Amino acid sequence: MGSGIRCILPTERRRGAIRLAGNGGQWPASGVNDDLQTLFSFLRFPSVSTDSRHKGDVRACAGWLADLLNSSGLSAVIHETPGHPVIVAKNLHRADRRTVMIYGHYDVQPADPLHLWTTPPFEPQIRDGRVYARGAADNKGQMLAHVLGAAKTLAGSGDLPVNLVFLFEGEEEIGSPNLGPFLAEHAASLKADMIAISDSGMVAPGVPTLGYGLRGIACCEVIVRGPKGDLHSGVFGGAVANPATAIARLVATLHDADGRIAVDGFYNDVRPLESWEREAWAEVPGMSDVDIAKITGAPALFGEPGFTSAERIWARPTAEINGIGGGYQGEGSKTVLPAEAFAKLSFRLVPDQDPEDILAKVRDHLVRHAPRGVEVEVLPGHHGKPYVADPGSAFGTAASVALSRAFGADPVRIREGGSIPIVRTLSETLGADTLLLGLALSDSQVHAPDENFPVAHFEGGIRMQQALLEELAR
Amino acid sequence: MGSGIRCILPTERRRGAIRLAGNGGQWPASGVNDDLQTLFSFLRFPSVSTDSRHKGDVRACAGWLADLLNSSGLSAVIHETPGHPVIVAKNLHRADRRTVMIYGHYDVQPADPLHLWTTPPFEPQIRDGRVYARGAADNKGQMLAHVLGAAKTLAGSGDLPVNLVFLFEGEEEIGSPNLGPFLAEHAASLKADMIAISDSGMVAPGVPTLGYGLRGIACCEVIVRGPKGDLHSGVFGGAVANPATAIARLVATLHDADGRIAVDGFYNDVRPLESWEREAWAEVPGMSDVDIAKITGAPALFGEPGFTSAERIWARPTAEINGIGGGYQGEGSKTVLPAEAFAKLSFRLVPDQDPEDILAKVRDHLVRHAPRGVEVEVLPGHHGKPYVADPGSAFGTAASVALSRAFGADPVRIREGGSIPIVRTLSETLGADTLLLGLALSDSQVHAPDENFPVAHFEGGIRMQQALLEELAR
Repeated sequence: MGSGIRCILPTERRRGAIRLAGNGGQWPASGVNDDLQTLFSFLRFPSVSTDSRHKGDVRACAGWLADLLNSSGLSAVIHETPGHPVIVAKNLHRADRRTVMIYGHYDVQPADPLHLWTTPPFEPQIRDGRVYARGAADNKGQMLAHVLGAAKTLAGSGDLPVNLVFLFEGEEEIGSPNLGPFLAEHAASLKADMIAISDSGMVAPGVPTLGYGLRGIACCEVIVRGPKGDLHSGVFGGAVANPATAIARLVATLHDADGRIAVDGFYNDVRPLESWEREAWAEVPGMSDVDIAKITGAPALFGEPGFTSAERIWARPTAEINGIGGGYQGEGSKTVLPAEAFAKLSFRLVPDQDPEDILAKVRDHLVRHAPRGVEVEVLPGHHGKPYVADPGSAFGTAASVALSRAFGADPVRIREGGSIPIVRTLSETLGADTLLLGLALSDSQVHAPDENFPVAHFEGGIRMQQALLEELAR
Repeated sequence: MGSGIRCILPTERRRGAIRLAGNGGQWPASGVNDDLQTLFSFLRFPSVSTDSRHKGDVRACAGWLADLLNSSGLSAVIHETPGHPVIVAKNLHRADRRTVMIYGHYDVQPADPLHLWTTPPFEPQIRDGRVYARGAADNKGQMLAHVLGAAKTLAGSGDLPVNLVFLFEGEEEIGSPNLGPFLAEHAASLKADMIAISDSGMVAPGVPTLGYGLRGIACCEVIVRGPKGDLHSGVFGGAVANPATAIARLVATLHDADGRIAVDGFYNDVRPLESWEREAWAEVPGMSDVDIAKITGAPALFGEPGFTSAERIWARPTAEINGIGGGYQGEGSKTVLPAEAFAKLSFRLVPDQDPEDILAKVRDHLVRHAPRGVEVEVLPGHHGKPYVADPGSAFGTAASVALSRAFGADPVRIREGGSIPIVRTLSETLGADTLLLGLALSDSQVHAPDENFPVAHFEGGIRMQQALLEELAR
């Protein structure tokens, strides 16, 4: 799952918030249609990519998926990698038709903590109109909608109106280590005019959402070192700089008092928001300042002056301290003057900021602002470029129409605040725009217990895929 | 052990820095005199007060000590408390003589990590002129010197020139929870004109050291709360304040850029240094700026402008962050925007600062500087008042002469940077000045593996006790 789902991380999930529905909430067995039965079969594979004990399950799931694709009238190939397999499935391609790639992943996150699940994670159940299972939203439910949509069109007309390439990997949840090399090796046979991914969310139930941008990221860790060992703060305090104080003073220089980032040149390459974006985003459901305050539970909103919450999240860069630590972490007090302290920083970037340029500027800033009496080391971490496509392109228009046909409402056009590195990899390797047709919800509990996916979004997703193929053929 | 020993805490002890001496370094068995044999017996009790499995050992140690006191010609009583016993021993008191109390403690810190000891912690050994064992310096070696000194004088003349009260507790290492009530209950029978404690250190080997002051302490914890749960920093970053950033910005307001404490009124009640102190301290061995830089290994010294390291440590207050934490603490990166973050603060105080007044001022400061978008809570912690006595008093002069007779050099007069709450309790309850006649060294490894105590300081301590009784009688 890309990070387009607005999630409260599982550590803070309010227990018991999701209760077993009464009988009325249970989907009657007779009401589970074939499409849902197929989804249930898919969800029963514990295809946990990070856990070597599930290697056989991941493999079995890939085999099941390839069989489904082949029986739908596509031609599927299981490609071995050093890790879990990549599946590529195509219809018969014709030179006079556009080629669309649909990317998805059939691996899932681990299901623990198991005791927080209302029903077992690999025994799918429907309650109150949602499918509950690990992978229901991330990503099996979303990707299967595309597969079943294509299968229905094939079953109906014996052909698809476009060249279709399904690209399904089994390692998204572990960072797609083998997909980049696979794409580079098979770039010629994977050539596409456009790429669609449903691995993110809608802004609200039933509100079709077209994502055309992502923030990039640049991470680093800064370590402040003082005395050679932890000192007694009574015996030495006052005579040597305290690294815990120093790390606080250092990272406090990253912003000005109003919340702007104070690193020299940080905003140099930031592309201003288009005026249509500001207008459109003001209307996006679930993204008003009131909504964001309610979802996050923050005492008050706070961010860069002059922008709304949606603008701050989707189109403005940030500097965040993801972790800070030094000295005594236990209960009560311990009068230690720690030898070192650290802060883990990440910067969300927007077009046209370059992660390596930003990391260099941040390093300069941190070294220049090093407090007296300590040494500062900056360790660069992973990074990825921001991404933005044109939602007004032919592809964007086709996707918009498909969304509106499938869900009976005009889609909202948004960017995502998170970073999905594979989007950039796909677009750069295959030379095509990527759009995000997310179907999950902010309370779909992705990566958390009681993951779920609305049946209506699954069914809408199937219609969306059929409409998308038709619209792309125009 | 009071905090007067300059210690690198055990977590950062450089392993292997202390090696087994060759045969030449071993004290030959025949060379261990009766006093050292007595010390060895004392050290063999694993009188670890914090560990209930050692309750019997603590009790046995108290019994052994009472027997030793009684057999020396004193009258010892073991007083039960809700915890470990207090032992009080006296000679026959006469109304026309001064009364001196010697305080000490027979309990010790736990010995773990055991694997870092060169020889077992409760099997004392002498190497290179030092006794190695848990409790050798803290506090058995130091307090036993006083006992043996008194015993020798008694053995020699059949009487002591002053009224003597030994007060030995078994709970110093767990914060003396029962000593305060014991003192209050027995204040009348414990009345003394002066109190001496050897539970700290000399500034350098063989340099007799008279401590006449201690810093106080005031602790608190500040917690910054933002969103109701941890958030994905991509999905919400930019729109809500980050508590990890906020805690850094908040505690960064505690000092100005030069290292002065920026809390309003913080220095109001600070008693200026006496000019004789500044002159005397400039000459104290081991406390020059060069010494402090070398001992701590800090890249550079840093502290309040206008003061030397000794002055900053002994006579100026501090604000230290003993711990700071929030968000991801593990390896690598995790793009979390944490729900809360904390800092554990302690303030070392000097006469005439009042801990409760300082805590109130600090709370005001933190609340007033609360960053936007978060809530700030300040939890007050333990505190103790600073202490200073007059080293030029009759008692101070007698102690100085005793130190100089015992060690063949004039004592240096210092304050301690740490805080020993019991000093204040003793002085206030019994209405007498307390002086610190520390005998350990900065590398005595108190509270750490390979704790040790110089044989020469043990022997000097015995002479010091004999001389002290004589000088106090003048």
